[in-house]
Amino acid sequence: MTSLLLVLQFSMSMILDGKKVARQKRALLAERVQTLVAKGIIPKLAFLTAGADEASLSYQHSQARICAKLGIATQSINLAADVTEEEVYNAVIQLNADVDVHGIIVAIPLPKVVDEERILTAIDPQKDVDCLSPINRGRLAFDNSEFLPATPAGIINLLHNYEIELEARHVVIIGRGKAVGWPLAQILIQKTKKGNATVTICHSRSGDLTRYTKQADILVAAVGRARFVGQEFIHSNQIVIDAGINAVETSAGWSMVGDVDFEAVSTKVKAITPVPGGVGPMTVAALLENVVIAAERRSK
Amino acid sequence: MTSLLLVLQFSMSMILDGKKVARQKRALLAERVQTLVAKGIIPKLAFLTAGADEASLSYQHSQARICAKLGIATQSINLAADVTEEEVYNAVIQLNADVDVHGIIVAIPLPKVVDEERILTAIDPQKDVDCLSPINRGRLAFDNSEFLPATPAGIINLLHNYEIELEARHVVIIGRGKAVGWPLAQILIQKTKKGNATVTICHSRSGDLTRYTKQADILVAAVGRARFVGQEFIHSNQIVIDAGINAVETSAGWSMVGDVDFEAVSTKVKAITPVPGGVGPMTVAALLENVVIAAERRSK
Repeated sequence: MTSLLLVLQFSMSMILDGKKVARQKRALLAERVQTLVAKGIIPKLAFLTAGADEASLSYQHSQARICAKLGIATQSINLAADVTEEEVYNAVIQLNADVDVHGIIVAIPLPKVVDEERILTAIDPQKDVDCLSPINRGRLAFDNSEFLPATPAGIINLLHNYEIELEARHVVIIGRGKAVGWPLAQILIQKTKKGNATVTICHSRSGDLTRYTKQADILVAAVGRARFVGQEFIHSNQIVIDAGINAVETSAGWSMVGDVDFEAVSTKVKAITPVPGGVGPMTVAALLENVVIAAERRSK
Repeated sequence: MTSLLLVLQFSMSMILDGKKVARQKRALLAERVQTLVAKGIIPKLAFLTAGADEASLSYQHSQARICAKLGIATQSINLAADVTEEEVYNAVIQLNADVDVHGIIVAIPLPKVVDEERILTAIDPQKDVDCLSPINRGRLAFDNSEFLPATPAGIINLLHNYEIELEARHVVIIGRGKAVGWPLAQILIQKTKKGNATVTICHSRSGDLTRYTKQADILVAAVGRARFVGQEFIHSNQIVIDAGINAVETSAGWSMVGDVDFEAVSTKVKAITPVPGGVGPMTVAALLENVVIAAERRSK
């Protein structure tokens, strides 16, 4: 692997192909689902939304389709935008109690009238496949969360698949959000095979970001701004992970781009994830694996 | 403040006097306790240990003495080393139920037979003045924990007292432990007045630590190794925070030293905390403040 990277470094960047790796992962998951079905257990994922917009519902449908292909059942509870906190809370309690449901995803942000933290705290930690419950978040840093959150797990699985070492490497993360930056840092600093990295978290108030990003062995962009990371952020010996998904309007219609300016950066680094086809499919695969894990635990 | 630091920089380092600042803080706390007592509420802190050694018990006694001076009541439950998990668990449940108890400190590590995470999870988050419950830990990163853990809070209070800006500063923390390194990073990266710093966490598997520490505006040592941080780690424009407490044997008996080689470093940086008299007293003051906060919340 090392020698391969060495050769590539002087010719072109390596593309970390999340689409391909996720496909392999889904094939393995389909086998695990079959084993469960043979025992009479159908893994089931429940979506709970309140006041979801079109984009959110369309994302839910695409996830449900992927679930269907693997043999994972889904259920959707889409509450209206003018819902009360008690209605959302009761929906969570009902899903917790439903023995046929193995995983629960609550779409955030919830409407403003709802105390989001109370709702997330109510999710049964053993069904919290997106690792949003504060209990699981608190356990994350000590490697005893019930599940790893999907995007960080997807990123780590992708690096692992390409045999990219994390120990003693400097990972610089741009972004301190709940879904990616913060939990990824938690996992990477742990004393585990998936961790032992040295991590820097920078963000919108860090001042000159290049002061930090130029130091990175592995640079993770989780900013939520289209093509934010340009040439001035990177160096040639770097691995760049793009966790961004941004819709931008082009002359040919809407297009999906990452937080990294792929055209400017991709030929100048050691390896990079494309958008789409990088972190995105790895995230979905990681989430589905959490549902399968939840069902497998129940089957024991 | 800035001009003062500037002058000091060319003459000698500034000593960040935690002993003095903590004394002022305790005086303010004593007033708040009096206000509570006037309402008929005596703030009370409970210690729970299992198989505690001499050092741990002596630390507990010294904390109880400081509590007594402020008018905070204390209670100790010191279980034997051969305790069962249920006994420890039941002790926590009893303290949760006791309306006279406002804060609970469970000494960790607990004996090996005890599932520590289960015990910490059992602590009522509203009495968890050391922020050890995974619920509070999980909420920490999003600025909605019931309390800030004592040592990180003490460090931040000390910096705040000396008007040392955190926003857009690079804080490098050596150590990823539960008590200091990890929670301090959580607080510092938040979008709050106490945060907005850029944080790097390094540790025993980071390789050459000076690669990171030399980059720091503020360097925090939380390693647990006596005089670990020497001249090669620092630069002259740096603020050094020493969270270490290590007992070392000298010709004159036992002596308390920090993680920083104070003699070698203290004249060569902009500002530094001594050991003892730096982070230690600030930690105790922060813990006592949490107990007072817990009692104040109950009084409303």
